[in-house]
Amino acid sequence: MHHEIECKWKGKMEFEGMINGHSITIDATPAGGGENHGPSPKILLLLSAAGCTGMDVIPMLEKMRVPITGLNIRAVADGTDVDPKVYTMMKIIYEFSGNNLNEHREKLERAVSLSQEKYCGVSAMLSKAMEITTEIVIA
Amino acid sequence: MHHEIECKWKGKMEFEGMINGHSITIDATPAGGGENHGPSPKILLLLSAAGCTGMDVIPMLEKMRVPITGLNIRAVADGTDVDPKVYTMMKIIYEFSGNNLNEHREKLERAVSLSQEKYCGVSAMLSKAMEITTEIVIA
Repeated sequence: MHHEIECKWKGKMEFEGMINGHSITIDATPAGGGENHGPSPKILLLLSAAGCTGMDVIPMLEKMRVPITGLNIRAVADGTDVDPKVYTMMKIIYEFSGNNLNEHREKLERAVSLSQEKYCGVSAMLSKAMEITTEIVIA
Repeated sequence: MHHEIECKWKGKMEFEGMINGHSITIDATPAGGGENHGPSPKILLLLSAAGCTGMDVIPMLEKMRVPITGLNIRAVADGTDVDPKVYTMMKIIYEFSGNNLNEHREKLERAVSLSQEKYCGVSAMLSKAMEITTEIVIA
């Protein structure tokens, strides 16, 4: 696996990321000297973790024939307030919707566990730096 | 420090991330069952790392009165091809532009070192999972 990105300074604290042709603006908040034209860079780690496990769980549940109609993943992190400011814990909350999903709770739990323990590369990396916990909610 | 994001499934492998009001689409490539409507989640780690250190280096160089006019940060990572697919090394290449920057090379190196060793929370986290190296290029 080989990945590359570019991140170009646009002035003040704003940068434009280029990822395989996709542009993403990142910026600091006004308190941090920026203009809030995009998310701050650190919080992208949470989206990376949520998206990575989501892309594991969706095809697994399709194979398991679990009739989900929606998935909203929330990632919540707490961390230090001294430099370097790092996350020390992250909770990933999977909110599934669909008909009679309570009957499939074991499969939902299995898919989440398999992602966290076996497949999700982002969780495998970030778990070296912080505690990661999960929660399943059936909407 | 407390951070939260949401990541909502849009169908197939596409998710919409919501970060403090900013929307970011992530998706898999066609080879991964997606439609490439956005970057894949894992590679966001590289943008997170590049942006975080960029937001350290720019104000440091302003304080040091180094007359940079441009900064393009490239992040390049190599990793495993078996699950969980993780990065094992990342190189961050800082491409500075400006007049007579060669006279300020020591300050550029000091700003990069201070970011990597003291301030950049993303590098502090990711360095638990992979080797991080840096390179300075004066354009």
